[in-house]
This record gives sequence, C-alpha cells and structure tokens, in this order.
Amino acid sequence: MMACETATDTRALALSLLAEIREATRDGLGVTRESYGKGENTALRILTERAQALDLRCESDRAGNLWLSLPEDERAAPCLVIGSHADSVPQGGNFDGLAGIVAGMLILLGLRGRHEQSQPVRVLALRGEESAWYGKAYLGSLSLLGKLPAATLARPRRDGVDSLGEAMARCGADVGAIERGEALIDTADIAAYLELHIEQGPIMVNRGWPVALVTGIRGNVRHNLVRCIGETGHSGAVPRWLRKDALLAVAELLSRMDEHWRVLLQMGMDMVMTTGICSTSTQSHAVSVIPGEVAFSFEVRSQDTQTLERFYTLMREECAAIERARGVRFEFDDRLFTEPATMDAGWLDRLEAAGEGPKLERIASGAGHDAAVFANAGVPSAMVFIRNENGSHNPHEAMDIDDFVAGVELMQRAMLAG
Amino acid sequence: MMACETATDTRALALSLLAEIREATRDGLGVTRESYGKGENTALRILTERAQALDLRCESDRAGNLWLSLPEDERAAPCLVIGSHADSVPQGGNFDGLAGIVAGMLILLGLRGRHEQSQPVRVLALRGEESAWYGKAYLGSLSLLGKLPAATLARPRRDGVDSLGEAMARCGADVGAIERGEALIDTADIAAYLELHIEQGPIMVNRGWPVALVTGIRGNVRHNLVRCIGETGHSGAVPRWLRKDALLAVAELLSRMDEHWRVLLQMGMDMVMTTGICSTSTQSHAVSVIPGEVAFSFEVRSQDTQTLERFYTLMREECAAIERARGVRFEFDDRLFTEPATMDAGWLDRLEAAGEGPKLERIASGAGHDAAVFANAGVPSAMVFIRNENGSHNPHEAMDIDDFVAGVELMQRAMLAG
Repeated sequence: MMACETATDTRALALSLLAEIREATRDGLGVTRESYGKGENTALRILTERAQALDLRCESDRAGNLWLSLPEDERAAPCLVIGSHADSVPQGGNFDGLAGIVAGMLILLGLRGRHEQSQPVRVLALRGEESAWYGKAYLGSLSLLGKLPAATLARPRRDGVDSLGEAMARCGADVGAIERGEALIDTADIAAYLELHIEQGPIMVNRGWPVALVTGIRGNVRHNLVRCIGETGHSGAVPRWLRKDALLAVAELLSRMDEHWRVLLQMGMDMVMTTGICSTSTQSHAVSVIPGEVAFSFEVRSQDTQTLERFYTLMREECAAIERARGVRFEFDDRLFTEPATMDAGWLDRLEAAGEGPKLERIASGAGHDAAVFANAGVPSAMVFIRNENGSHNPHEAMDIDDFVAGVELMQRAMLAG
Repeated sequence: MMACETATDTRALALSLLAEIREATRDGLGVTRESYGKGENTALRILTERAQALDLRCESDRAGNLWLSLPEDERAAPCLVIGSHADSVPQGGNFDGLAGIVAGMLILLGLRGRHEQSQPVRVLALRGEESAWYGKAYLGSLSLLGKLPAATLARPRRDGVDSLGEAMARCGADVGAIERGEALIDTADIAAYLELHIEQGPIMVNRGWPVALVTGIRGNVRHNLVRCIGETGHSGAVPRWLRKDALLAVAELLSRMDEHWRVLLQMGMDMVMTTGICSTSTQSHAVSVIPGEVAFSFEVRSQDTQTLERFYTLMREECAAIERARGVRFEFDDRLFTEPATMDAGWLDRLEAAGEGPKLERIASGAGHDAAVFANAGVPSAMVFIRNENGSHNPHEAMDIDDFVAGVELMQRAMLAG
C-alpha cells in the first residue's frame, strides 16, 4: 500500500496517473476516449488497476460507471460523492474530466487513517459525459439516476460504429433497466455531489485565479437552424426600398441582440449568446445577387431560466419587428431547452470557508457538467474550477499541477470541516 | 420586301422574331445563348436571315458583331448606332439584349422611304455582353473599341469548353487585332450610341412606368472575398469581454453600412450595397462554437464615382473601428473597380421631348450595359428602359409588347427630330 499523505506524493501520483492515461489514449496530438467505447474503457481499466494497487475498493454500477472507496470505511450511506467523467471528445485534452477523477482518488487516499473525520466518501468515474459521440451529453449520470430518455439508446455513434444501447451493453450496463428509466441509485444515499474540473473558458487565466467556485451551470435555449427568407434580386438593379435582403435582416437581428446582451450584462444578468453557424445559400449565392435566404443557428446560455426565457422572447420579438420592416420571414426549427443548474449554497460557503488565501472568486460554468444532472435531481452539488489555458475540447489544454493540487487540498479541507 | 410602316406590322414582326429566336435557343425553361458560342450564333443567324429577307444590308465587324443597315442609305458616317447584345446568361430570359436588337431593326425598317429625315442609322447586334460565360462583360463592344484587356482572351469558359480567344476565332473575329488592342472602328464615326433594354430591376413595374430614360449606368467597387478573423471558443465558457466573435463583427459592419446607406439615400445620393455571399467556416463551424472566421463579399454600386469612393472609404473605416473594438481582423482580396457611365444629356432631353404622354421618368441602371462602354469611350450614349416583370437573368422575364412598341416609337420620334 502506498502512502499518499504528503503534498509531494499527491503531486507525483497525480502526474503519473494523468501521464499514463494520456499515453494509453493518445490519438495524434490529443487524446480520444470514446463514450462507452475503447478510450474510455482504457482509462477506466488503468484507474481500476492503480486503485487496486493502492488498496482501494473498485465497483461498477449498472450504468457501467466505476466507483472507488476506502475498504476500511464500513459506514453506511449517505456519502459524499466526488465525481467526474472518464471520456473525452475526439482529439480532446487530457484534463477535461480525468482531472476530477484523479482529484477524487487523491482525496480518498488523503482520508486514509482519518476517514471518520469526514462523512463517508466515494469516488465516481462517470462514463459518457461528452455529447460528441452520441449527440447527447451526461449518458452515465442520467442512466444512473434513471433519467436517460429511452430513445437515446438508439442513437448511432458519430462514426456509425454502433448504437448507444449496443455500446452500453458491451460495457456491462443493464440496458433494460436504463431503458425502463429505473433509478440505479437512491439519491437519498448521496449527501452531496462534488466535482473538480478545469475551466473550459479563459476567465480564470485572464483574472489570475488558480481556483474558483462554480455558482451554477448554465442552461441553454437553442435553435440549430433558423432560416431567414427574403427575395433574391440583381444587386445593381433593385433599389433599397424594394429589397428583401435576408442577410441584412440577419445582420440587424444579431446586432440588435448583441446590444441587448451588452445591456443585460450591465444590469448584472448572467448570459452568453452565440450564432455559431450562419450562411447565405451556398447553392445560389453570388457576389452580385441579393441574398434571398440565410440559414443560421441561435444559442443563449444562462444560469437563470428567466433570463433564458426573456432573452429568447426578445429575440422572437426582434425577428417579428424585422419581418415587418424588411419584408422577410424567419422560420424556426424545434426549440431545444436545457435547464440551468444551481450549485448548493451551503457547499459553496463551506468551500469558501476552507480557502486559505484571498477569498475565492465565484464564476458560472458555461460548459455543461455531470454536476448539473445531480443538482437537478435534488442532490446538493458543488464544483471547483481549476485554471486552464488554451480552452478545452482541444489538445492544447494546459492545467498547472500546482493549481490542481490547490483545488484538491481545498476540497479535502472542506470535507474534513463538515 | 415587307412593309413595316404600321403599328400592327411592327408588333407582328417583333413578336415573330422574338418567338423564332426563343424557340431556336430554348434550354429547358429559359434560353441559353453562349457568348461567342452556339446560342449566340443561332440568334445572329436568324437575325441575318430575317434582315436579308427584309432587304437590309448585313455585315460583320472584326470582333464578330453583326451590323444591319438600309442598303439604299448611302450617306457616309457619322451615324447613329442602335445596339444591344445577342447573348444571354445560362437559362436566361428572351428579352435581355435581344429586345434592343429587334427594336433597332424595327426602327431601321420604319425609316424606309424617309431615311433622309434622320442621320444615317446602323443597327449593331453585339456579342458577349454577359459576364456569365468568360467572367468578363462587354466582350464584343470592348473588342470593337480596342479596349479588351489582352489577358481576357485566355479566360476559360465557365464549363471549360474553350478559351475566349479560341471561341472568338471560331466566330471569325480578328483575335490578333483584338489582342493588340486595335480600335476596329473609329468612334468619330459614331454620332451616338442608343440602346433599348428591359429594366432588370422592379422599379418601373412598382412605379407603373412603361418606358423610362436611363440617366447613367452604375459603376461598382467590389471585393469578392473579405475575411474577418476572430477567435473560436466554447460558446458557453467564454464571456462577452473575452470574445472575438467574427460573425458579430461582420453583422455590426453590415448593419452600420446599411444605416449609412439609408442616410446617403436620404441625402439624395445614388447607390446600392450588397453582400451576396457571407458564411462562417463550413469546415469548422458548429452551433456551440464562437465563429473564428467569416468570409463575405462586398459590393457598392453608384452612378457617381465619388459616392463609390466615399462609401468604400467609410466601409474600410468602419472595419478599422470594429477591429479595435472587437479584437478581430479584416483581410481584403483585390479591390475591383468598374467605372460608372453617364448618359448624354442632349440625347436624354431629345428623348424626353419626343415623349407623347406624361413626362418620362428617369432612372439609373443598376445593371451594366454596352452603352457604358461607348459612353466611357466618349460616344454620346443614351438608353431607353422598358418595363419588365420578374427581374432578369432568369426565364421569367415578362415584357409587355405594348411597352416595347412604345419604346421603339419613342426612339424613332427622337431620331427623326434630330
């Protein structure tokens, strides 16, 4: 049995575990850990081997997720769950998800010999958090809580290799129970869900915060495809008052919403707005033709459902105004809604109190995390973000091990303070 | 020899000639008359046969254009040239170009027996006006005036069938002389260039004007490709103040220019602005990714060179301001410039004086015409527009034969009044 009671050991174990899994799942520049597939299996296998060598108990649940615990801690639930995910996007970074599992292992080992000073702790290595593979996120956590929509099981993988149900079955999951929506765990047995994760945006790097507390996980309202229909015409021969220029209509819409966004931020609201896709019709557009059609996406994210709904309503009202003013028409595909999740105020305070340096800053998570699933299922949930350069979902993620260790120690202190 | 002295005969001849050429160059829904190619040759052959049957003199110039005249009119130059073009865009309409040649024939026939009441008249059926085939407009008129850039001869046809030089040679043109830039006609021999053409925009239909006078032909400044470079990022995780959203930058640019355009029109300036092509990067865009690059075209047209230059400068200044405000960068391809052309004030007044109903309205031509080439070569030029529904460069052009006859008679009266 290894001793992991010193900062040096913690750091060395983290580095060696992160490096071993990176090497085993390397794919060109980055790492690839398919949800319920090869790379994720490899990561979970290495985690299991290391955990067993460290004399931790390893168990799988009926959704295929891996649980680690101290075998000497025989207390019953409820317990604190420290979780994150083992999968990655294609050619992703090594820290997105994996860092949180490694953090859990280190915390567990740090309790060895003094586990009774904390509530019972279990580490949860979740499968299938990334939507990149089956077009749906949170597969492992939703399955565990009996909340995976049954139709999701039929979704094909992005490369058509299999369906989610087939992949899950191969990983030993109880697909029948998941399809029936059975809860595979009693949420009353989870005192809290805690997750350490790299920040996937640039805020902490820009602000100089090594560690921060997450106030909530933004939900979103989204249209994958909005079409603005105007009227094509000769770019020289149609005067302004007879034009129905679909592109100028969309440009006006986006500029108006951008300005509304700026004002709402000044009013203290939390939100981001993105049109990631926008194009005139590639079949018929030309330099000297007034655009008759523009296709675009629209997404707004916020921690607050009311802000989402209000901004969405504002967008539809602006569309209606632009339709009247410009003689165009907007057509919307199905509206998609993902609920925001609020982190537990008690745990935020407890984490803040455990901070040793300057008061910890709080930020919203723009990206989604399994913590949102637990929070929305009624489990008190909290997240600690670690500073990370170069964004995420790419091979260039760069987390400093000192920042990581600071985050692990923070969580550990908060748990022991309970 | 047919007599064409009554309105009924004029109308009947126009209808039968337009119908015969439409049938012979029909292509699916519309007509296709390739510049210096099959459809254009067919149209010129039919025009020649009909002209000869009507006892008109037919000659080709060294650029392959067809000239018609009254053989009994033996007076020397200078003469009035009534011209238009015999080619069409692919799947185009029957009236774009052809109507003006037919008008010339009718006017010529209308002078029979009284040709000395007018200056000598010659009808010019031009080749290659449409840029659709070799990516360059005004091929026949530029060649005739010794102004075709030599490099144009190497341009391939849109379908790769041949180069312009090869096609011209097959049509009997003196490619060597054209390449050397020799003027194949002395512009001093042209007293004026007059052209009847359908309007290719919707103004006259909307205003209820059957016939109108053209004040000038808009020139343009154009970039076929401008790239706005920003920075991609996670749509949820990057806050507004750290974004470099290329799409919102382009939307702001277009909205600002649209507003400037509105103001300039209110100040009485002539211009239109079009971004016909605009797209986020199709390789890398996604609903949840902040756009890091947008490619778009930019075109401004005006009758006035100063307006073109000022609006262009304004656009570049707005780009610079947006670069500073949003952390993006605009990259421009070569700037393309086409000079505006002003129609001859004397001929406009003469045409106006020849009007018999309400005072004729005057409008700018947004589309290009061979008249611009003659005007910019110093030939007094004028154009009469005929009302036309459904735009142009499509099979749905719809010119009323009554409007056409009114335009022909107007030109005829103006010429006899000289």
